[in-house]
Amino acid sequence: MVDTSATIADVTVTPVAFRDPPLLNTVGVHEPYALRTVVEVTTDGGVSGIGETYGGTLHLERLRRAAAELVGMDVWSLHDLIARTTRALGTDTPGGDGMSGMVTGSSTVDRVMSPFDVACLDIQGKLVGRPVSDLLGGAVRPAVPYSAYLFYKWAAHPGQEDDDWGAALDPAGLVEQARRMIDEYGFSSVKLKGGVFPPDEEIAAIRALREAFPGLPLRLDPNAAWSVETSLRVARELDGVLQYLEDPTEGVEGMAAVAGGTPTPLATNMCVVSFDDLAPAVERKAVGIVLSDHHFWGGLRRCGQLSAIADTFGLGLSMHSNSHLGISLAAMTHLAAATPRLTYACDTHWPWKRPDEDVVDTTPLRFTEGSVAVPTAPGLGVELDRDALARLHRQYLDCGLRDRDDTGYMRRFEPSFPTETPRW
Amino acid sequence: MVDTSATIADVTVTPVAFRDPPLLNTVGVHEPYALRTVVEVTTDGGVSGIGETYGGTLHLERLRRAAAELVGMDVWSLHDLIARTTRALGTDTPGGDGMSGMVTGSSTVDRVMSPFDVACLDIQGKLVGRPVSDLLGGAVRPAVPYSAYLFYKWAAHPGQEDDDWGAALDPAGLVEQARRMIDEYGFSSVKLKGGVFPPDEEIAAIRALREAFPGLPLRLDPNAAWSVETSLRVARELDGVLQYLEDPTEGVEGMAAVAGGTPTPLATNMCVVSFDDLAPAVERKAVGIVLSDHHFWGGLRRCGQLSAIADTFGLGLSMHSNSHLGISLAAMTHLAAATPRLTYACDTHWPWKRPDEDVVDTTPLRFTEGSVAVPTAPGLGVELDRDALARLHRQYLDCGLRDRDDTGYMRRFEPSFPTETPRW
Ligand SMILES: [Mg+2]
Ligand SMILES: [Mg+2]
Repeated sequence: MVDTSATIADVTVTPVAFRDPPLLNTVGVHEPYALRTVVEVTTDGGVSGIGETYGGTLHLERLRRAAAELVGMDVWSLHDLIARTTRALGTDTPGGDGMSGMVTGSSTVDRVMSPFDVACLDIQGKLVGRPVSDLLGGAVRPAVPYSAYLFYKWAAHPGQEDDDWGAALDPAGLVEQARRMIDEYGFSSVKLKGGVFPPDEEIAAIRALREAFPGLPLRLDPNAAWSVETSLRVARELDGVLQYLEDPTEGVEGMAAVAGGTPTPLATNMCVVSFDDLAPAVERKAVGIVLSDHHFWGGLRRCGQLSAIADTFGLGLSMHSNSHLGISLAAMTHLAAATPRLTYACDTHWPWKRPDEDVVDTTPLRFTEGSVAVPTAPGLGVELDRDALARLHRQYLDCGLRDRDDTGYMRRFEPSFPTETPRW
Repeated sequence: MVDTSATIADVTVTPVAFRDPPLLNTVGVHEPYALRTVVEVTTDGGVSGIGETYGGTLHLERLRRAAAELVGMDVWSLHDLIARTTRALGTDTPGGDGMSGMVTGSSTVDRVMSPFDVACLDIQGKLVGRPVSDLLGGAVRPAVPYSAYLFYKWAAHPGQEDDDWGAALDPAGLVEQARRMIDEYGFSSVKLKGGVFPPDEEIAAIRALREAFPGLPLRLDPNAAWSVETSLRVARELDGVLQYLEDPTEGVEGMAAVAGGTPTPLATNMCVVSFDDLAPAVERKAVGIVLSDHHFWGGLRRCGQLSAIADTFGLGLSMHSNSHLGISLAAMTHLAAATPRLTYACDTHWPWKRPDEDVVDTTPLRFTEGSVAVPTAPGLGVELDRDALARLHRQYLDCGLRDRDDTGYMRRFEPSFPTETPRW
């Protein structure tokens, strides 16, 4: 028998920035750097674990407040993590979601505790010699399938040279983008971030993708850019073409109205983003599929609870992604592997990140046929590269960005860029 | 780093019988022996874990089928346990609940896998040096409060000498029973198993208990012996007296009708007994409190999922009990300790079991002020006593009982004992 008791002795919270291409969405365009925060939790016995989360100012400040409260905590107690995080935040204000206003209303406690939950599981796994997936009930699949995540995009950030991917502003550009992404990664599902152009252009894009990739499940996510009426029209036009339609319109009532008028399943990471949102959404039959995301659902174990709720109330489960680094990809992979309910390929922004920018050695996270094999080393299976962390932290300090602002960035080039919803 | 990998090499399934007093309920009376099954799971490395469940014939046969399927399983995979149990059962028939018809409709897979889930967690805890509560997210309370569980009872099984507790067939007898139980164990909540006498007698009993124990929360559980109308009348008469009223009437519709007509919270371990029952009960607002029970909700980790659902849908959570031995008490204590939502004192039949009959050394399970301290040793914290197991198995073989049949036993003495529902 080994001594596996472990108390948190130190927590570091490090904001980082990594380069991000000009990806378009309904609220604007990705800035030249994506912001994230890396947390490292170290026990009194010198075992350390890592987690990754959003990088905005308010969130960062909250993470630091929570970090101070975690010293002395038993790494085996998820419940104490919830209690300490709640205590650290006190009567906090909302906001700080770090998603440029596209996802709001998630629980602040769940969002702040998430990277620490991941880091504690990483430590537990290292202490006992098991991969994190085992601590979540065991992997039900040896590898986790991800989806190609297509974006309309500019050829370059204004004033910079064209990036490696080039422009994608019409159906042909998206088909080309998809082809390259599928060739390189082997993805067998495709998601298009929509809400950028008038619906008919995006319908045409989906049709072009359908024609180019006949067998592949397709998804479209306009981030609630449409009215109920427009949503129903798009759903009708794409009836039988989409695997699911993601957040066509805003709010539970709007989604329920769309859901009632189309056989196409509706998915969401906007109207159901916290445990508090589930009961009303179930009551109104507003959504068929919830996109889980451990970054705002309270970490990996809380996502297991979400999965049980989805099982119980007949909801499908898929996985949402923001621009992220390797710690998140490892955590997403362990979680998805240990979630029987998660039968859809998960979203990931991974292909949009430069391979030479990360805070971990990403070797264990290679894609084969669109999937990442579940790491089998103890814990998350990825190790912090302290030099790389220092480099990306330096980049954070130098880049000047402190809060994600897709709309503000867009307006520097298109001052009249609209933000009313629904746009169409 | 230690090697904590472990594959199941052997599973033994042993039915046992222990003496049980003539406790009355709405379907009859407890027979002279209660039946349970003890499972022991041993890994290729020689580490063993234990679990406890019902003892009926059909259940026993299913446990043996499942046991055969578990050899070779990784003890870290809850998901594989579910898959293997499902495979072992194939297209099974319902029934085999082991509760004399009082609890029906629970999931056969959940019921069969439960003791193996407990045994695997016991092994995991031993392998990594952590108590089971830590593997469930950590104890949120150092000790788990239990409730005094009062029964109307005969003085003796017919033909035997009076037992130590004597008769309790009226309010005075129940008050005396409660006083002794509270004196010996320190309980600070009281539950009465009702449905035995006409409602007015049981109302009188609750009033007598209220008078004798002014500050103590009181519960009444007639096991659905009443019509909706009778339930509403009892609820009205006891308005403000009961902490909760448990299963006054049958089924979701009946419970919803009662719930709509009384401010007293309704609890259930009869109309919500499986994950499939939750959505309809939530939709109909049929119950306020679910009584969890790892023996039929699929083990300890599945009960954690039930707790998350209760959190999310605003249901209270308490804990149900049947006649049980020390393995179950240890498991219940770890589970309740690691369930923040479980804010009611748990039910237990513990005081009705003779202290000299068990399959484990019960020293770690001592009651102080009505509570059992959460064992801190690795695993469940109780060890199988093989001699005692052999004795209780011998008692099983000798006693002749093979299926719990409270009604059949009652009818030997009262041939016209009624079984129609509602009785009142
Ligand atoms: Mg989305
Ligand atoms: Mg009951």
